Amino acid sequence: MRNNSIKMKYTDILVIGGSAAGVAAATTAKTHNNDKKVLVVRKEDEAMVPCGIPYIFGSLDDSSKNIMPKQGLYNAGVDLIIDEVVAIDEVEKNVTLGSGEIIFYDKLIIATGSTPTVPKWLAGRDLDNVYYIPKNKVYLDKFKEKLETLQKVIVIGAGFIGVEMSDELVKGGKDVTLVEIQENILSLAFDKHVAVAIEEIVKSEGVTLITGNGISEIIGKDGKVSAVKLQNGDILEADAVVLSTGYKPNTKLAELIKLPLNRKGFIKVDHYMRTDIKDIFAVGDCAEKRDFFTRKSSGAMLASIATAEARVAAMNLYKLSSLSAINGTLTIFATSLAGKGFGAAGLTESQATAEGFNVVTGTFEGFDKHPHTLPGTSKQIVKLIVSRETGIILGGEVLGGMSAGELTNVVGFIIQNRMTVSALLTSQIGTQPLLTGSPVRYTLIKAADMVIKNMNK
Amino acid sequence: MRNNSIKMKYTDILVIGGSAAGVAAATTAKTHNNDKKVLVVRKEDEAMVPCGIPYIFGSLDDSSKNIMPKQGLYNAGVDLIIDEVVAIDEVEKNVTLGSGEIIFYDKLIIATGSTPTVPKWLAGRDLDNVYYIPKNKVYLDKFKEKLETLQKVIVIGAGFIGVEMSDELVKGGKDVTLVEIQENILSLAFDKHVAVAIEEIVKSEGVTLITGNGISEIIGKDGKVSAVKLQNGDILEADAVVLSTGYKPNTKLAELIKLPLNRKGFIKVDHYMRTDIKDIFAVGDCAEKRDFFTRKSSGAMLASIATAEARVAAMNLYKLSSLSAINGTLTIFATSLAGKGFGAAGLTESQATAEGFNVVTGTFEGFDKHPHTLPGTSKQIVKLIVSRETGIILGGEVLGGMSAGELTNVVGFIIQNRMTVSALLTSQIGTQPLLTGSPVRYTLIKAADMVIKNMNK
Repeated sequence: MRNNSIKMKYTDILVIGGSAAGVAAATTAKTHNNDKKVLVVRKEDEAMVPCGIPYIFGSLDDSSKNIMPKQGLYNAGVDLIIDEVVAIDEVEKNVTLGSGEIIFYDKLIIATGSTPTVPKWLAGRDLDNVYYIPKNKVYLDKFKEKLETLQKVIVIGAGFIGVEMSDELVKGGKDVTLVEIQENILSLAFDKHVAVAIEEIVKSEGVTLITGNGISEIIGKDGKVSAVKLQNGDILEADAVVLSTGYKPNTKLAELIKLPLNRKGFIKVDHYMRTDIKDIFAVGDCAEKRDFFTRKSSGAMLASIATAEARVAAMNLYKLSSLSAINGTLTIFATSLAGKGFGAAGLTESQATAEGFNVVTGTFEGFDKHPHTLPGTSKQIVKLIVSRETGIILGGEVLGGMSAGELTNVVGFIIQNRMTVSALLTSQIGTQPLLTGSPVRYTLIKAADMVIKNMNK
Repeated sequence: MRNNSIKMKYTDILVIGGSAAGVAAATTAKTHNNDKKVLVVRKEDEAMVPCGIPYIFGSLDDSSKNIMPKQGLYNAGVDLIIDEVVAIDEVEKNVTLGSGEIIFYDKLIIATGSTPTVPKWLAGRDLDNVYYIPKNKVYLDKFKEKLETLQKVIVIGAGFIGVEMSDELVKGGKDVTLVEIQENILSLAFDKHVAVAIEEIVKSEGVTLITGNGISEIIGKDGKVSAVKLQNGDILEADAVVLSTGYKPNTKLAELIKLPLNRKGFIKVDHYMRTDIKDIFAVGDCAEKRDFFTRKSSGAMLASIATAEARVAAMNLYKLSSLSAINGTLTIFATSLAGKGFGAAGLTESQATAEGFNVVTGTFEGFDKHPHTLPGTSKQIVKLIVSRETGIILGGEVLGGMSAGELTNVVGFIIQNRMTVSALLTSQIGTQPLLTGSPVRYTLIKAADMVIKNMNK
């Protein structure tokens, strides 16, 4: 019989997708269910470290230095198949691979990620030397190789990836112009005065920065990029254009089984990352998010958010844990330029105000070592955004040296624990001359002090 | 009349002592009570940054680079008098200065700090070239000047100050031997296997390390140090001995007004840092502390603890705030050697076990950047100590690069918010290639995963 030739197998837990979310889901699922078989199916043999992608253009010699090691999966006892899932049968509870193999599952986690998106109206988007930034090693390797012959690069979109790409490309000797339609770069993460401070650093690195002006079309010659026309009519010569204008969730498989999507196109999930179909979960860039404070649908796509969702799904596969749920997505951003670090957690002042919060803020400028006469000391600035009625901390922005990323995580835990500014002001911290600001002027605590001063005004 | 010649003045809030605790108390008091007059009286014209003291022997050229700027007080609107308080009249509510001036107060904060202590039985403690590490610029300057003529230095006591001093002295070209009576250095902060890793670094810096062996006497010749005899009978030649064997609270003034001390000699206070006498508070190294978990009397002396207490006192001078109290002292330590950072918050595994907790631990070894092929990446290890019954996190130890201090503060906030290991495992964090570990293998989160794995065993 013909059916005999179809390869079939069973796994308890099947994860589709093996980037950050898929790997975190699979390894955590195995930790919590050591007796279960866990399998990841992904298309890419070598999966890129997603946030590391900009660095393959400068700080890292090669994309091969930016690979998530498979060993992490094997060490955890997770199996891996490199293939594409082409169909899901949610009734029989199996998936079909490109090879024809059928894999039955008990629990299915969809972690299919996202792909770059470009405005449909953008003329010239299909010209040679127009590039996107997908999480795809083969594409990126070709892109990088081609770039070697190109000098003038225009990066469109100054989110974190656009800013980091620009900085790495300029380090690699390219003439880089970064174009942002918003008035300031990184406007999702930082208030204007913080963003302006970062812009100064971007410019000092040698990037030409154009803000408050979007792209209108890409102009070509002989099928290749020759220039970019901006919305104000300016024309910039260009050898290459890099479009970092956002990503869209990959939901093709989900749509095949009619999983409901939200208005932004993400797979609908509950707080435990469960979809509308029993035993099917979705996590990461393809899964719906609601903002931590406003509960509005959020379009945030960060590997760190994806892995938190992955862990939640993994911990709730077989039983619910009310402690382990995503109670709203908290955006925690960070980046580093020119040996400085920048981070933000929660709402900016302008976002909080736009959402209708009555906010009071406090900003303190200190140092990341003490005394600040120590070699290698960086200025450190913390801004806190606080709800005036409750004193609860809604957001924080950090500028500093290389400890700014972990200091932003301190702010993240403060927010997730719904701490008030008074509680923060009397919290106990650890300080050390070479590692932190001073106990008397620890920037985060003094920013809380400034909030209370401003509240009392 | 003679009384007319006595200078008198009134301040609303009077702080005795102007090191970390005094300065933090005064500035926070002013923030919260802008209409009140706040005055600091301290003996030292120039107050040293306490934790920066070891660095004046190496990384900083001079002790003048390690001064807490008075400008911080003046900017906050706090007055400063350089003089000694010689008496307190707690009935009339005034203090008398060395100059004879009498200052009346409404609220008094005692922040008189601590001084080095040495075992009374230690023969040779009064020899020339035996040094202590007080927070006294005049003494330290003389000590440093004298050291220029001395080569072989023996440091007794491998707490944080002893370790940091040894490292700085060896950088300055001295032959340094560090002697510790406990089996391992820094044993208050770190479990054995972590301490051993730090010991390797101390040794690689060039410090000769002797552990499990205490000092028995200091041997002199012509009134000067010539050698040190250890408890096992070994004799080490020495030009100078540095005793970093602990500090005792300065309570002379408190005793004059019969403020009760606890058995360890600290001024008794409640959770709002109030002493037994109305309107008198005590904060910092001179004030009683109870451990965060065990509620036992604690002898911890850290500038960071002192400033947290100072802020609590300052916020509760005129009204109580139940949110702003010291609900137990959490020790959060950090240090840095050879470009690496180390930190610990809460209980070690051995302390928790000795206290009777049924603990489960988890350790994960990752990196402080991602991918770890990025230049300047350090190995990062996090160990978590968790109560098996409740899942509540009791302590954490961190080894890593220079972000280890702030990552330890993340652990500190996790503990202060009494988070469970499950809540941590599904917490949202921010990651960035140059600033943190990877989202999939963020060391702190993976350590939580290891705890759960070990719980399920």
